[in-house]
Amino acid sequence: MIVTMKADAKAREISDVINKVRANGYDPRLSECDGGTIIGLVGESATPLRVEDYQEMPGVARAERVKSGYKLVSRAFHPRDSKVPLNGCYMGDNKVLVIAGPCSVESRTQIIEAACAVKEAGATALRGGAFKPRTSPYSFQGHGEKGLQWLAEAREVSGLPIVTEVMEPGLVPMVAQYADVLQIGARNMQNFPLLNAAGESQHTVLLKRGMSATITDLLMAAEYILACGNERVMICERGIRTFETSTRFTFDLNAIPMLKSLSHLPVVADPSHGIGIRQHVESVAKAAVAAGADGLILEVHEDPDHAMSDGQQSLTFDGFKTLMENVRRVAEAVGRTA
Amino acid sequence: MIVTMKADAKAREISDVINKVRANGYDPRLSECDGGTIIGLVGESATPLRVEDYQEMPGVARAERVKSGYKLVSRAFHPRDSKVPLNGCYMGDNKVLVIAGPCSVESRTQIIEAACAVKEAGATALRGGAFKPRTSPYSFQGHGEKGLQWLAEAREVSGLPIVTEVMEPGLVPMVAQYADVLQIGARNMQNFPLLNAAGESQHTVLLKRGMSATITDLLMAAEYILACGNERVMICERGIRTFETSTRFTFDLNAIPMLKSLSHLPVVADPSHGIGIRQHVESVAKAAVAAGADGLILEVHEDPDHAMSDGQQSLTFDGFKTLMENVRRVAEAVGRTA
Amino acid sequence: MIVTMKADAKAREISDVINKVRANGYDPRLSECDGGTIIGLVGESATPLRVEDYQEMPGVARAERVKSGYKLVSRAFHPRDSKVPLNGCYMGDNKVLVIAGPCSVESRTQIIEAACAVKEAGATALRGGAFKPRTSPYSFQGHGEKGLQWLAEAREVSGLPIVTEVMEPGLVPMVAQYADVLQIGARNMQNFPLLNAAGESQHTVLLKRGMSATITDLLMAAEYILACGNERVMICERGIRTFETSTRFTFDLNAIPMLKSLSHLPVVADPSHGIGIRQHVESVAKAAVAAGADGLILEVHEDPDHAMSDGQQSLTFDGFKTLMENVRRVAEAVGRTA
Amino acid sequence: MIVTMKADAKAREISDVINKVRANGYDPRLSECDGGTIIGLVGESATPLRVEDYQEMPGVARAERVKSGYKLVSRAFHPRDSKVPLNGCYMGDNKVLVIAGPCSVESRTQIIEAACAVKEAGATALRGGAFKPRTSPYSFQGHGEKGLQWLAEAREVSGLPIVTEVMEPGLVPMVAQYADVLQIGARNMQNFPLLNAAGESQHTVLLKRGMSATITDLLMAAEYILACGNERVMICERGIRTFETSTRFTFDLNAIPMLKSLSHLPVVADPSHGIGIRQHVESVAKAAVAAGADGLILEVHEDPDHAMSDGQQSLTFDGFKTLMENVRRVAEAVGRTA
Repeated sequence: MIVTMKADAKAREISDVINKVRANGYDPRLSECDGGTIIGLVGESATPLRVEDYQEMPGVARAERVKSGYKLVSRAFHPRDSKVPLNGCYMGDNKVLVIAGPCSVESRTQIIEAACAVKEAGATALRGGAFKPRTSPYSFQGHGEKGLQWLAEAREVSGLPIVTEVMEPGLVPMVAQYADVLQIGARNMQNFPLLNAAGESQHTVLLKRGMSATITDLLMAAEYILACGNERVMICERGIRTFETSTRFTFDLNAIPMLKSLSHLPVVADPSHGIGIRQHVESVAKAAVAAGADGLILEVHEDPDHAMSDGQQSLTFDGFKTLMENVRRVAEAVGRTA
Repeated sequence: MIVTMKADAKAREISDVINKVRANGYDPRLSECDGGTIIGLVGESATPLRVEDYQEMPGVARAERVKSGYKLVSRAFHPRDSKVPLNGCYMGDNKVLVIAGPCSVESRTQIIEAACAVKEAGATALRGGAFKPRTSPYSFQGHGEKGLQWLAEAREVSGLPIVTEVMEPGLVPMVAQYADVLQIGARNMQNFPLLNAAGESQHTVLLKRGMSATITDLLMAAEYILACGNERVMICERGIRTFETSTRFTFDLNAIPMLKSLSHLPVVADPSHGIGIRQHVESVAKAAVAAGADGLILEVHEDPDHAMSDGQQSLTFDGFKTLMENVRRVAEAVGRTA
Repeated sequence: MIVTMKADAKAREISDVINKVRANGYDPRLSECDGGTIIGLVGESATPLRVEDYQEMPGVARAERVKSGYKLVSRAFHPRDSKVPLNGCYMGDNKVLVIAGPCSVESRTQIIEAACAVKEAGATALRGGAFKPRTSPYSFQGHGEKGLQWLAEAREVSGLPIVTEVMEPGLVPMVAQYADVLQIGARNMQNFPLLNAAGESQHTVLLKRGMSATITDLLMAAEYILACGNERVMICERGIRTFETSTRFTFDLNAIPMLKSLSHLPVVADPSHGIGIRQHVESVAKAAVAAGADGLILEVHEDPDHAMSDGQQSLTFDGFKTLMENVRRVAEAVGRTA
Repeated sequence: MIVTMKADAKAREISDVINKVRANGYDPRLSECDGGTIIGLVGESATPLRVEDYQEMPGVARAERVKSGYKLVSRAFHPRDSKVPLNGCYMGDNKVLVIAGPCSVESRTQIIEAACAVKEAGATALRGGAFKPRTSPYSFQGHGEKGLQWLAEAREVSGLPIVTEVMEPGLVPMVAQYADVLQIGARNMQNFPLLNAAGESQHTVLLKRGMSATITDLLMAAEYILACGNERVMICERGIRTFETSTRFTFDLNAIPMLKSLSHLPVVADPSHGIGIRQHVESVAKAAVAAGADGLILEVHEDPDHAMSDGQQSLTFDGFKTLMENVRRVAEAVGRTA
């Protein structure tokens, strides 16, 4: 249930509602909008909730059941866009922010050079995988903590914050020591212990949509993180699995306006995985921004044909520079900057 | 097989190749590019083709087997963009052309008013269904020939050419009497007798992708029409079926750059069916143009909530006007007009 | 709306209901079950229907709105299994009936030999395509009417009735002259003019599920045929399109019990297309029968590796014989014969 | 690469191959078949492998590269069916083994009663979740270790071994103290740290297919476990995500014969999740056995309508008893017992 207080509700009336929520065995979560207070009831309790009980309390504008299953991530609970701080800017603000870098951290030199190149072209953050989820146990699995250290050096040199994947709950504290943003990958979108660990870390999280997750599933997964009191979450469309085989995944463009209307969280698009073919990444990136994405995450590699992973979808440094210029024009056409 | 002649090949050398193709039992199709001639071998024959036989002929730059199955629609056969005439402009040219109007022709007044409204907002052509493919036999099936007559009146009044669906081969001649562009709907994309009839009509065709058709399937379906000698074909992405249920279909944004790179045919996007939710149609339209679509086809209705079909995805006249302005800005950002 | 009369309703009460249906502008369709009469209201009318008006009439057990969209194909309208006559047996009866033969009719000899071979192994009907829907315009499209004549000869020799595809409404009368069962293929499941033509022919129809059609879509397509007064319809699960690429299609086993519970029509399974790999066709066939399929349709070819179409999924004559024996055992295990 | 030795290869020849594998920096894995030895090369090395180098060694029948990406799970490496011990029987043996029980362990009494009921009806093992992966953070998440203790009591009383889910690598040792079989759920199929932890535990694993995992992905995930030296793995088809919405998932029947032909691992089917509708679970179960499944895993609940999870797809005790009888008949029809 979500209880919206009147704009002129008194502090006493708000605390009465909060106390009733607690008395009923639920956890009250507060959100502000245009001076008004919104109270979400979270958790489980043996006490069944009745809308009427709250509806009639002094100062309450309305009480509504949540049909969608998610609460804290919904627009109903938090009507205005959330803004997640990133490198002095905010993901979810007017400027479209770009996270770029190689799929895998391959060497110290490689990641430092990539950081400088994407920084110069206008990226706001650096991506790079130190722990790589790979379909085959015999594929390169990443350099682990050494990779994280190289990422930290690249941050030192370039000034760009680091976005990197964490694959298991037990490693969240260690990865969080190095990373500015914890990425939860598509294959782990419903790894609930990992979502809880990321939530409890209070670290910024980039949550990617699973390849067969519905939009509702994605919002529910984000809800796990917010339910831990961590509101710094960006959600990412990165392509879903369909019958089409000429592209790596099917980038679900529709998900962008849908997520923006259902949730207040910033929405990032991943054109690299979304189409999986280098020459077409820019088209998808421009489309995502035209459709309302708040940010992009892109794979960029000094020499994509010799990358240790995802080379066929990685942009060259030059390709990334051109993309940034072209994306900027589209961003301006929809009233934003980039 | 596709045989590309050298730019300085002599007329005699070209005719020698053509004669050899005929002698082998195939039908030669010619295409020009930058002064050079490209010859496609079409049809079936008992004579197996050998690349070497053609490769070595005087004036031949190269002979290649076609792995994709389609020939005449491919970039290999026709390297430059095809341009299909529409109302004094060309679909496939720099200007993004917009086809707009109601899902169904409901009455004489309705279609005339819609025609004038979309014309004023900048549409290049009028859409409207007189024969409606409906999942249920008990749903409104369209006004048939009477609807076509009303469309013709709307053209008279507005000056907009008519795009309307034809559902069976036997009706192609009748529909072609009224329509400027024959639309072949998603459910009929692999209705091969219909493709042949549309091809033989030599009328302009708008071919929509089937909801479970791959990009290759769509190009193969277009090949049926071109194989009849009819090159005035536009292909249309309109959303595919996936597991996602919060939108009507999943608009396959990737298909736009893919189709543009594999084929020379102009690519039209249908955001109305692609997402199926009125408030998000504009986002998808802008994205499609940003990704390189040559045109848009959009459902617009005077009073969408009382439309006889597809009301939930139809724009109001005002909504369409706003969309046109916003799409124009995106078109300009990618170096086009609209 | 569907009106179920009481078992002891008087003839007068039934005719009163029928008259009211007509007065309301609908077409009454009758079905019998255990002595009781069920009346379905079909068609469109300006008169809104009210359940109460019928509910209160003498002799009426209950009146219900139909939420599913289909009526005549539903169990609510026709509670008992429909049985469609085929070669002295009935599809939908206890015996599992098998339709077998080559994908395409390739020659007179080929189809006669195939007919005799499948007859001997226990098939009830012969399949073979004279008109072939092919993804590419350059693939073999079938022998047309000559193929139908060869099929008729094969029937003469073997005694097996013929199941063959018709692809366009204009050819229904001609194909119906030769065929015992008109097959409507997956690509034409929503070719509504074809469904109407097949319905009006009053010929037995085998309707295949489209590769992206939901179970509801399939039942709606069948409803088109029944709405023409033609009740001799078999519906066929033949595999849907999914992300899985190691098989040609994904055989939707679930569809068998679903269709049997939602509809009274006999359900046929097509393991050949459903998996697309010869060595596994028998496993799928046994599974389909175990799940409740009333019949099977199978591709069988004298020399599959040299078939003009679908060779990789066609059984040899020996393979078909073995399959029949093994399917028979499974049929007996679920209380049927084969 | 996989090296197959001749049946009469000498011990010396085998050890020469093994030494060469090690010298090349790979890990040799041995498998026996009909007296012959097969050697799989596992791991990563800077040394490129050359087939010729092994092909020419004395005693080698053939050396082949593995195109599929998986080795240890493949039929090429291990031609005969693997048999995984379970309660005095073997999964993968002639007898079809059934694992049954509630979705969630709800109480001590509930799980003990369920264990006795499914034992009496013929189940070989007891399923029940103590840690529940739930889409919503507000749904019941399981009783955790207390649930495992109740499961252990149920084993004590019934004699049935326990199959239960583990969701994070850090909990594998604890869950393995109680469970006989570690279940890795669909959402965790590509949770690679969990696969590694389960592999290293050397505990029997039931690995469920992800809802958008291809058959190849599933075999690759199993390869992770076998690469840890743990061969006691059963793989489970439980339904995939498709566009069909009338069933919870689409049970991929094709996967059963495909997995049996590509891999030696025993294949279990989960009809409960595969269709998600109680009344149709038996049809799917019979089909799975007819298609060659080695085992079934089924949800059974004393009072499904009041279950804390998955009630709509859980069988009653009586329903399970009837299913067992009917499945037994199908098993016998395909030459097995149950």
